Amino acid sequence: MKELEPFCLSIREDLLKVEALMQRELQSNVPFVRHVSEYIITNGGKRLRPILVLLSAKIAGYSGDSAIHCAAALEFMHTASLLHDDVVDNADLRRGKSSANAIWGNHVSVLVGDFFYCRACDILVGQKNLSILKKVTDTMVETTEGEVLEIAKSNSMDITEEDYLQIITRKTAILISACCQIGAILGNISEEFALGLGQYGLYLGISFQLADDLLDYMSESEKIGKLKGTDLREGKLTLPLIIALKKATPEESRIIKDALIAKELEERRLKEILSIIQKYDGITYTLNLAKQYVLRAKGELVQFKPSIEKEALTALANFAIERNR
Amino acid sequence: MKELEPFCLSIREDLLKVEALMQRELQSNVPFVRHVSEYIITNGGKRLRPILVLLSAKIAGYSGDSAIHCAAALEFMHTASLLHDDVVDNADLRRGKSSANAIWGNHVSVLVGDFFYCRACDILVGQKNLSILKKVTDTMVETTEGEVLEIAKSNSMDITEEDYLQIITRKTAILISACCQIGAILGNISEEFALGLGQYGLYLGISFQLADDLLDYMSESEKIGKLKGTDLREGKLTLPLIIALKKATPEESRIIKDALIAKELEERRLKEILSIIQKYDGITYTLNLAKQYVLRAKGELVQFKPSIEKEALTALANFAIERNR
Repeated sequence: MKELEPFCLSIREDLLKVEALMQRELQSNVPFVRHVSEYIITNGGKRLRPILVLLSAKIAGYSGDSAIHCAAALEFMHTASLLHDDVVDNADLRRGKSSANAIWGNHVSVLVGDFFYCRACDILVGQKNLSILKKVTDTMVETTEGEVLEIAKSNSMDITEEDYLQIITRKTAILISACCQIGAILGNISEEFALGLGQYGLYLGISFQLADDLLDYMSESEKIGKLKGTDLREGKLTLPLIIALKKATPEESRIIKDALIAKELEERRLKEILSIIQKYDGITYTLNLAKQYVLRAKGELVQFKPSIEKEALTALANFAIERNR
Repeated sequence: MKELEPFCLSIREDLLKVEALMQRELQSNVPFVRHVSEYIITNGGKRLRPILVLLSAKIAGYSGDSAIHCAAALEFMHTASLLHDDVVDNADLRRGKSSANAIWGNHVSVLVGDFFYCRACDILVGQKNLSILKKVTDTMVETTEGEVLEIAKSNSMDITEEDYLQIITRKTAILISACCQIGAILGNISEEFALGLGQYGLYLGISFQLADDLLDYMSESEKIGKLKGTDLREGKLTLPLIIALKKATPEESRIIKDALIAKELEERRLKEILSIIQKYDGITYTLNLAKQYVLRAKGELVQFKPSIEKEALTALANFAIERNR
């Protein structure tokens, strides 16, 4: 939560309420469920989704308590998908700490993930707003489909830039967009403004994910909380590599292919692949695309009059690509 | 579906509509999602949950289309939990066919399970009935907690009969009870009748699960669609064995413990354990308990006037313990 604090001036109190609510909602009659869920929620995360729900609700003129509940629910939805993702990816680290599946095994991650989903649904049903429920359930169907698309495509050498953008849109950006749209629904603003907030979230989500994928090729373990080259180690092709593959020589393609299927990836190999990416400007290309999406996100905010929330949303868009973790 | 046909005289048309709706709702933009989900739904299952929603709605005097949608959604919820269960249990067979995780891997089962959950939520949200939504989300929280309780307790030698009953109540019976309660909500019947239907479902669910656990020690692979002694092979203690353990000699306990932790379980070992169970009447005890729950289930129906649905619900309760698969 610390990282995004500068963007939270006007919602600091509400964010604390979200944290408290999440703790309360994780109470369970089964002590082990509480134990695992608290480990996961306490181990941080940026709280990007709650922040977006709260800022969007405020910019839409809403000031009730429902935003707090929706914010907590959306963070739970996100947490559930991370838990299941870690099982799918066999990930050992999450946010710099051991992932739940690494500590307790896949079966616990699957079930506690389900617990988070169910709790999220429970909170949302309690808000008695069918438009919000419809938005969230539609979003979750698309997100899940996006994750399946990812496992079906992202380890194929034929994956195109278009495929990749479709995957990150569905598995990441649509949920972030939903957070903003929920704010719009709560504020009951006109279609035009609501669409704008939704598109802002979508572009923000895409730029966040592009930057994440870049960071995977740039940062150190202690910074990002992920092993360097994690995607590659998991056999996943992201944009920097997809761009490089388009122009790579057959020999270079073979090196990349070997790295994708190899069980272990030595530092030497990883560096070789990084240099292929750099040779074909995979990093620069991806960064430029992320910058374009940041501009488009900010463009959607133009129609809103100046406010502290508008400033925060603008700053968040810049942050998407300026952060180093 | 064939097995339960005799109980479906008055809802045959509606059940066909449920099947058609499930097929429609599994349409996905991601062809692989559709492929896997259709495999799973087409591979059968008794459709107990849809049948209970439809019968309960009818006995509660409801005749609209919402029951069909709810029935499909509850079957999806159940399917999702089976998919995740198979990952948790590392099961190779489900309903006599290869389980989804055995064919496509755990990651596919996790995500397609999520897809079923989301689609179920989507269908339910479309019904615009907040009482039903609340009932289902509360139920799913409890079911998930029950599954965690199971992995936390059911491979422990200290598990008591009480623990075991709590586990099967939460992981199985509460969802079955919810199906009946949804019928009651749709029919808008008085608290008294609604409670009766809910309790009927709860007792029915418990007796079904007790009988399932018995069948695991009694039937052949081709009959039940599960390897004989599957629970034991998965390191899971169910009631027949829990009863035996209470009275077993230290030597017998050691044999059972070895079987629980062993990677492979030879036929000879399994037979040895079956004879220990029989020595201490574990089978008879479990069967008698199941019979008691069947009586309690039928007792809850006494307050309803005679009808074809009441007959069907009664027959279903008898079937719970009379079936051989």
